[in-house]
Amino acid sequence: MASTIFTQIPFQSNSLNKISNTHFLPSFKLPVSLSFKPRTALPKRLSIRAGLIEPDGGKLVDLHVAEPERELKKLEAASLPRVKLTEIDVQWVHVLSEGWASPLTGFMRESELLQTLHFNSLRLGDGSFVNMSVPIVLAIDDSQKASVGESNSVALVDSDDKLIAILTDIEIYKHPKEERIARTWGTTAPGLPYVEETIKNSGNWLIGGDLEVIEPIKYNDGLDRFRLSPIDLRREFERRNADAVFAFQLRNPVHNGHALLMTDTRRRLLEMGYENPILLLHPLGGYTKADDVPLSWRMKQHEKVLEDGVLDPETTVVSIFPSPMHYAGPTEVQWHAKARINAGANFYIVGRDPAGMGHPVEKRDLYDADHGKKVLSMAPGLERLNILPFRVAAYDKTQGKMAFFDPSRAQDFLFISGTKMRTLAKNKENPPAGFMCPGGWQVLVEYYDSLTPLEDGRIPEPVAA
Amino acid sequence: MASTIFTQIPFQSNSLNKISNTHFLPSFKLPVSLSFKPRTALPKRLSIRAGLIEPDGGKLVDLHVAEPERELKKLEAASLPRVKLTEIDVQWVHVLSEGWASPLTGFMRESELLQTLHFNSLRLGDGSFVNMSVPIVLAIDDSQKASVGESNSVALVDSDDKLIAILTDIEIYKHPKEERIARTWGTTAPGLPYVEETIKNSGNWLIGGDLEVIEPIKYNDGLDRFRLSPIDLRREFERRNADAVFAFQLRNPVHNGHALLMTDTRRRLLEMGYENPILLLHPLGGYTKADDVPLSWRMKQHEKVLEDGVLDPETTVVSIFPSPMHYAGPTEVQWHAKARINAGANFYIVGRDPAGMGHPVEKRDLYDADHGKKVLSMAPGLERLNILPFRVAAYDKTQGKMAFFDPSRAQDFLFISGTKMRTLAKNKENPPAGFMCPGGWQVLVEYYDSLTPLEDGRIPEPVAA
Repeated sequence: MASTIFTQIPFQSNSLNKISNTHFLPSFKLPVSLSFKPRTALPKRLSIRAGLIEPDGGKLVDLHVAEPERELKKLEAASLPRVKLTEIDVQWVHVLSEGWASPLTGFMRESELLQTLHFNSLRLGDGSFVNMSVPIVLAIDDSQKASVGESNSVALVDSDDKLIAILTDIEIYKHPKEERIARTWGTTAPGLPYVEETIKNSGNWLIGGDLEVIEPIKYNDGLDRFRLSPIDLRREFERRNADAVFAFQLRNPVHNGHALLMTDTRRRLLEMGYENPILLLHPLGGYTKADDVPLSWRMKQHEKVLEDGVLDPETTVVSIFPSPMHYAGPTEVQWHAKARINAGANFYIVGRDPAGMGHPVEKRDLYDADHGKKVLSMAPGLERLNILPFRVAAYDKTQGKMAFFDPSRAQDFLFISGTKMRTLAKNKENPPAGFMCPGGWQVLVEYYDSLTPLEDGRIPEPVAA
Repeated sequence: MASTIFTQIPFQSNSLNKISNTHFLPSFKLPVSLSFKPRTALPKRLSIRAGLIEPDGGKLVDLHVAEPERELKKLEAASLPRVKLTEIDVQWVHVLSEGWASPLTGFMRESELLQTLHFNSLRLGDGSFVNMSVPIVLAIDDSQKASVGESNSVALVDSDDKLIAILTDIEIYKHPKEERIARTWGTTAPGLPYVEETIKNSGNWLIGGDLEVIEPIKYNDGLDRFRLSPIDLRREFERRNADAVFAFQLRNPVHNGHALLMTDTRRRLLEMGYENPILLLHPLGGYTKADDVPLSWRMKQHEKVLEDGVLDPETTVVSIFPSPMHYAGPTEVQWHAKARINAGANFYIVGRDPAGMGHPVEKRDLYDADHGKKVLSMAPGLERLNILPFRVAAYDKTQGKMAFFDPSRAQDFLFISGTKMRTLAKNKENPPAGFMCPGGWQVLVEYYDSLTPLEDGRIPEPVAA
């Protein structure tokens, strides 16, 4: 892989460098007032201050047990009641352990869940708010609750009974499943992927508490070196003397429209007066629904695209964001943005219908395509983040390449939807030249080729790349 | 009626007296932090400042057209497209017109609805938040939208085509019904009263804008004199030299347990150092579900209870809160509290399961009985309000009266639920002596007696008292 882009940091110390305040461009934010009228023009930047944006709560949370104490903690854990984690639970432990959800220090207690569900934000001791829009909770069933008994701590183990973490000062409370689903997704329709996967059959109780994670979470899938923590990323941005960091969340293959957008964003930031804006290209690495392209194939595709030179390795950092995917639209996009603040990003690119999907029952999109952008721009706790609305790119037939859509000559443009792209790749057909570099396209074709239908016609679990 | 209690203010000027800051008792609030642990003890009051709590946004909204301009506005309205209001829409116009929802100046535009649904709060121009948890929106259907066309204003008329208001600077946007329901109620189960009544069959569009209300809303039901506006109430509290105002929201008959609670609250406020705490006994007067006791009967019952002398007329103001009822539990209790700030209350009594009801489909309560109190204590924009958790009162068999429940001698107490109370009244049986004054009980018996079942066994619409 293009190692100058896919930055690997071999040694991870958990001490956080002193990080000064962020670039705050109040007039750049979409105006948030009683009468909301989105603006899209970028103002000229007035002054530039050094340093990355401060993490939420002022300090990056790091929940790892220090190396010298690990053995002691393992001994301690041996005598505790055990709670078994699902794969997705482990992904959340990973997210929490590295401070993506700073200042959260573990799975949510009831007060945090209630604030998340009702306010999409948590109030800190000083009265200020940090954004927190998706519940990060751990469900247990009746028998697990009984086995915890009166213990104040539990040991969290994975499916192989390997000790992952200790949860201390625990609080067990009712799992309000229906309410959690309704308030997070704005629907309770059956068929929401994350709900079916993690909530529907989960226990009737939630257990919150503070996490002590025995050692950094690893997946041993060949991609761990790309899973940079917020601390790693901040160090890398500082090493590169970034004076602006713009994050691009994705969970799909990169095409040249994305590349155009990222390049153009950098150009605009330079115009605003930034001298060294760095792109954080940040594919989501946790749970995704069955018909999304799996992480391993996406990383392979990103690699090819980057080799093709459409993005500058000097100003791009590619890393994996370990969060699972909710597909909760305007609610979830806040989480995606908030986590990137903690990783040092002060600009966030938001597209049409972020974290959206089709309604699982009705023939329509689950969310209004513009709500994600609007909600993000108004969200409590995200005031410091500069929201960059995604400009629409489409295939310009007159130029034979991806370009920003010009409504005055709409007939010149071809929109290639995700469904269209998948259909072409499945049928081993080529998209128009200039839509995606040939190497990247080939990865997609290979991926769909690997999905040989089973005898009963179903598509099997994807093969790891 | 007990006119010293049911204050009537004959002349209503809309100018708002200068109101200084509120009593802010930070340590009294339930602590709101990442680890929420409710406290119930009242701290000693440290200092007392004069003046009522400031309304949300600093200034009470008054959306009435000044008398001299009414004729001109009527002329203007005659040439505008018309939108017909339901009875409940008119109740919301009433609520908005008097500033209960300050600083809202009309039916919500999309940005306000999105903030309400996602954050239960609105951000003001200065970056501060006010609480706003229930959508106050106006639905129109496709044909109404077509008839509005490109007009910037519409005339709002009631079912008799009487002009109620002009809505200006309008914005028409999609009515996200499912999402509105899910995020407001935390369920989309069929059978939610407000949803069935106002949302299910409403139009696919919402129309927001600024209201100009032609004249104060009147119902001509004999109770208008008890519908004091926030301005009226503030004036009355000032006239009485209130140095604390504690609000008690209710939509049920008052029994002696309520009375005990209100009397005891005043005693505690006096202990804290307040010299003249005034009770705002504030029955909800807008839409309620079919099996609630109608307003007219409740007011009759309240009158009997007050005549009985259980509450002191000198320190009690009874008035009607014009809002319709959502039955949306923890979401709605915020609205109930926020509106009372605007009316000058700086203490709010919150009970078990406020604004709750049974789940419309499952055999359980829709909300956790403690969530309302917890959510209220953490809600953005309600920091200035002191939340008083309702102490549980029950019938003490040893004393033959309502008393605060003492868990150490639980066997001595009898809990008389709303259902139990209704069943007794329907069967013309008496509750234990000391549960409710006989005159008040007689009103309830008369009410249920008035509900002679129709031939098909259904209960008819209640007869006005």
